[in-house]
Amino acid sequence: VLVGVSHTSLEQTWLLARHAESQGATAVVLSTPYYFALSQPELCDYLTLALSGLSLPVYLYNIPSCTKVPIEVETVRRFLDTPKIKGIKDSSGNMAYYHELLHVTLQIDWSVLMGPEELLAESVLLGGHGGVAGGANLFPRLFVSIYEAAIANDVTRVRSLQEYLSRISSTLYKTGSYGSSFIKSLKCSLSVLGICSDEMAAPFQKFGQAHRDKVAEQLGALSLTLAGIQNKMI
Amino acid sequence: VLVGVSHTSLEQTWLLARHAESQGATAVVLSTPYYFALSQPELCDYLTLALSGLSLPVYLYNIPSCTKVPIEVETVRRFLDTPKIKGIKDSSGNMAYYHELLHVTLQIDWSVLMGPEELLAESVLLGGHGGVAGGANLFPRLFVSIYEAAIANDVTRVRSLQEYLSRISSTLYKTGSYGSSFIKSLKCSLSVLGICSDEMAAPFQKFGQAHRDKVAEQLGALSLTLAGIQNKMI
Repeated sequence: VLVGVSHTSLEQTWLLARHAESQGATAVVLSTPYYFALSQPELCDYLTLALSGLSLPVYLYNIPSCTKVPIEVETVRRFLDTPKIKGIKDSSGNMAYYHELLHVTLQIDWSVLMGPEELLAESVLLGGHGGVAGGANLFPRLFVSIYEAAIANDVTRVRSLQEYLSRISSTLYKTGSYGSSFIKSLKCSLSVLGICSDEMAAPFQKFGQAHRDKVAEQLGALSLTLAGIQNKMI
Repeated sequence: VLVGVSHTSLEQTWLLARHAESQGATAVVLSTPYYFALSQPELCDYLTLALSGLSLPVYLYNIPSCTKVPIEVETVRRFLDTPKIKGIKDSSGNMAYYHELLHVTLQIDWSVLMGPEELLAESVLLGGHGGVAGGANLFPRLFVSIYEAAIANDVTRVRSLQEYLSRISSTLYKTGSYGSSFIKSLKCSLSVLGICSDEMAAPFQKFGQAHRDKVAEQLGALSLTLAGIQNKMI
C-alpha cells in the first residue's frame, strides 16, 4: 500500500507520512511542493530535507500538471543512490521522459511506475515496472490483463486490450465538461457499482443526476463488452 | 491587517481564517485552490462554498503563477453582489485584466489592489485603489510616495520614483538565480537591516553568506540614492 503525501508544507508532509506509517502503509509517494514554482536545485534541497524526516520507503511522484514543478531527469539522477527511495511514479504523460527514467535506473532496483493508465501497456512493453492506474479501481482484472500481456510481450493481446481502454477513455471518462471529468466519472462509477460513495473533496463536487445516469448507462455498455473480451481470453 | 488564507483544502482554509480572526485580522485574502486545475464553473462553486464558512470580510486573490487557476473576469462578475467580498488583489501582472477588474467594479465599493509592486504606480494612475507591495516591507516611505504621487496625478514624480523602483528590481531583487530571487532578497534585506530573520519556510532556503554580502552592498547603495531622492522631495 503506497500512500501519497503531497503537500506544500514540509511539516505537514512529515505528519501525513507518520500517520500513513502508523496505519500500516508500505511506502509513501512524495510529490514536489506545488505553490511556488521551484527551480531544480531548490527542489533537490527540498527533497533532501523532506527525505531526512521520512522513515518509510519513498517513491518520488512526478506530476507537473498539478505541481507545476517537474522532477527533471538530472534531479532524479542525484537521488539514485538514496537507499530510502524505491522508485518513481511518473504522471507527466511524457513517454520520452519515462524512457529516460528507465535508462538512468537500469542498474538499480527502482520501480518506475506509470501514472496515466492509457500509457501503462506501452510503458511495460518498453521495460517499465507497472502503474498506478485510476481505472484499476473500476476494472481491476482489465489492468492485470494489460500488465500480464505486456510483460509476456503479447503485442496482439495488448492492442486489443488497449482498444478497450480507449473506449473507456473516450466514453465514460468524457462525461462532464472539464479536466476533472476523469476523476468525477471514476468516483461516480464506483458509487453506481456500490463500491464507495461519490462524495468528492473540495474543490470538486460530485456529478448531478443527469451525469450519473449517463455514467450508469456507459458503465453498463462497457461491462458487457468487457465480459465478452474476458471470456474470449480465458 | 489582511491575512492570506491560501490552501488547497477547504477545511484548512476555514481553520486558517478562524485563526486569523481570533488574532484580530481585519479581513482574509482568499486564493483559489492550487493543486488540481479547476474550470471557472468549478471555481465559482468552490468560492461559494468557501465563502459560506468565512465570517471576516474577504478579498479575492488572483495569482495564477502560483495557483494555475485564474479568477477570470466573468467569475469575478458573479461575486460582485456578495456583501462579504470587499475587493480583489491581482498578482497576475496582466494590466489588461486589471483594467477589466476596475471596469466591472466601477459601481460598487470594492478595493482593486495591485500585487506586483512594479505596476503599482500605473495601476493607481489609471484608477486602482492601492497595492500589496512586498518591497514596502523594506522601503515603506517609497511606496507611500508612489501612491501619493499617482493619486495626485503627478506623473513627473511617478516617473522618477518608478525609475528608482526599477533600480531595486534590477539589482537587489536579481540576487540569486531563480524565480525565488525576489522573495529571498527581500527576506535577506530585512535581516541585514535587523527587522526580522531571513529564515525561510520550506521549500525555500535562505541565502548563503556570499549572496547576503551582495544584498548588503546593494542595499547600502540603494539606501543612499533613496535618501537623496527623498530629501529632494520634502
